[in-house]
Amino acid sequence: MSNIPSSGRQLRSTIKSSGELELTLADVAVAAPSGDEILVQVEASPLNPSDLGLLLGPADLSTLKASNGVVTAKVPDHLMRMMAGRVDQSMPVGNEGAGTVIAAGPGAAAQALVGKRVAMLGGAMYAQYRTVNAADVLALPADASAADGASCFVNPLTALGMVETMKLEGHTALVHTAAASNLGQMLQKICLKDGVDLVNIVRSPAQAKILTDIGAKYVLDSSSANFMPELVAALSATNATLAFDAIGGGKLASQILTGMEAAQAAKGGAYSRYGSTTHKQLYIYGGLDTGPTELQRAYGMFWGLGGWLLTGFTIKIGPEAGQKLRQRVIDELKTTFASHYTAQISLEEALTPEVIRAYNRKTTGEKYLIVPSKGH
Amino acid sequence: MSNIPSSGRQLRSTIKSSGELELTLADVAVAAPSGDEILVQVEASPLNPSDLGLLLGPADLSTLKASNGVVTAKVPDHLMRMMAGRVDQSMPVGNEGAGTVIAAGPGAAAQALVGKRVAMLGGAMYAQYRTVNAADVLALPADASAADGASCFVNPLTALGMVETMKLEGHTALVHTAAASNLGQMLQKICLKDGVDLVNIVRSPAQAKILTDIGAKYVLDSSSANFMPELVAALSATNATLAFDAIGGGKLASQILTGMEAAQAAKGGAYSRYGSTTHKQLYIYGGLDTGPTELQRAYGMFWGLGGWLLTGFTIKIGPEAGQKLRQRVIDELKTTFASHYTAQISLEEALTPEVIRAYNRKTTGEKYLIVPSKGH
Repeated sequence: MSNIPSSGRQLRSTIKSSGELELTLADVAVAAPSGDEILVQVEASPLNPSDLGLLLGPADLSTLKASNGVVTAKVPDHLMRMMAGRVDQSMPVGNEGAGTVIAAGPGAAAQALVGKRVAMLGGAMYAQYRTVNAADVLALPADASAADGASCFVNPLTALGMVETMKLEGHTALVHTAAASNLGQMLQKICLKDGVDLVNIVRSPAQAKILTDIGAKYVLDSSSANFMPELVAALSATNATLAFDAIGGGKLASQILTGMEAAQAAKGGAYSRYGSTTHKQLYIYGGLDTGPTELQRAYGMFWGLGGWLLTGFTIKIGPEAGQKLRQRVIDELKTTFASHYTAQISLEEALTPEVIRAYNRKTTGEKYLIVPSKGH
Repeated sequence: MSNIPSSGRQLRSTIKSSGELELTLADVAVAAPSGDEILVQVEASPLNPSDLGLLLGPADLSTLKASNGVVTAKVPDHLMRMMAGRVDQSMPVGNEGAGTVIAAGPGAAAQALVGKRVAMLGGAMYAQYRTVNAADVLALPADASAADGASCFVNPLTALGMVETMKLEGHTALVHTAAASNLGQMLQKICLKDGVDLVNIVRSPAQAKILTDIGAKYVLDSSSANFMPELVAALSATNATLAFDAIGGGKLASQILTGMEAAQAAKGGAYSRYGSTTHKQLYIYGGLDTGPTELQRAYGMFWGLGGWLLTGFTIKIGPEAGQKLRQRVIDELKTTFASHYTAQISLEEALTPEVIRAYNRKTTGEKYLIVPSKGH
């Protein structure tokens, strides 16, 4: 057990009752793993949009300041009410990552992983070390780097979860917004491989090209003057009645439901002022636009809208189905589920105002990777 | 078969491609019933909000004109697009009604109903006569008048459907908006009888009194300055996580979801920026405000919103469960499901501009009944 360090650095985010966000690197004790626990030296952990919410909260990044390794920013007063659940708690951050198992408890499952590279999900990954249960990791193939395995869970399982949700809820094709994202590209690759029609909605010709370059058949630009007729045509061609929306705010969600209803109504049938009886569903899974969602409700009565979250989906399908999805991620790690990173940064760099502003920009196709060993 | 009239008057609504709503009384041929059909002389049929949509469409009632028994009004140009499915079709109106069976086909079920008073659902009830299948009517108790039985289906089954949906989807208490309506009063009576907590939301002290007079425990006025804290308190007390909303437009739907999340979050538990994992649901079943629904999405990821329609619910639960609900309506026709009418009007009066404006006002507690025999 001599290779167990006494402590390691861990990134912490606190929103204080005074209205200040504080980011620090804490030095936390490392305990020897017990039972089926393993101790992993974290080698890579991505900055996903889902991490940024916890890391930065609703802080105003124009007020970012760094001083003696502590970064602060002001949280606008009217947004503090929504932070009640986390006020004055020092919270570790980082949903997923990959690293090498450097010590293990006496359990057989744990011992079998010693020296192996594993992918992990479970928070607190922006750290040098992470103790987890052996059952909660995926052993990576021998040829996989830490960067290859760092984003095994959130984006791949979310993309697979969208296709599975489509099947579970009786739809046969999909719509996706902000579709040129890392996640969106994965979803398009899955759909091409599985023969599922996907209507991609993006906001610029450059984003459209990212998707057509990987073989996307339906790519619509919501800034086009012909967007609505193009949308109805694509929804008619694909019969898509389920959408996943990363944007949330504005009118796009309502436009998609309107387009679905127009496509269904165009099939004919008796008039009903309640619209077509085909259920049209849109799930909001992100919040790129945190403003209000505006619904025009011109789509009869057979429609639904709601939040969608990977963890909720995982609980719904149960551990066995979840394991099948995870195995597929491992099998297609370097193809369907390959991630590309804009930059690899150290824990210290992750707490630099200019770097924070860069990774928070959420530019389509850009993605940052924290490499805790960097600079050490 | 000498009591079969050769023809009868039937109210028709047409929206012409020229942008004009036209209401007329057509004289339609009456055929002898065959098989299990029965011929009913319609004695009473209510003007429900759900009828007004088909009857008047989105016509501008300030432009109503009557001339030689034909009533017309202008449909604003920008609303004609949504009318595509019904343009230039002469449509009969009236979802439900009650009357006496004056002739029947040779089938046993039909013959058994001759001379009986029945309640019917199925459209085209604003007429002197209606031919329906014997299986689609409910025989009324001997002491029930046509007015007692005229509103047997839409409001009673909608109110019962709300409580059944609550049970089916795992909720234990309800929220209802525009709650002092005829339907809302029925829902409150059902909830009192069945021991279900109901949070009623109304828009004036007079409406609140209608509900407290029948024993409502939770009645909130959304125009109160303390509405949000009062809402959260009621949602905490009842643990209601399902709402039925008759209004649709504006911010109330979002406020209710926000209140539900605040009530769930107040229970404690670990902080998650995705909010409580208890699913919060709101169904829009009406459109008293046809403007856009504005969602602030300050309720995490475990929420849903959607359309809800009695016919969709009836199909979902199947004929056996549906029959149980219908039997309950008959059993409690003069108590829980009693309807009160503001005025009884003839078919001719229903096509008078001032009467049309009166019944379209949808004033809480007011309800009109068409009595086709009136004036004849």
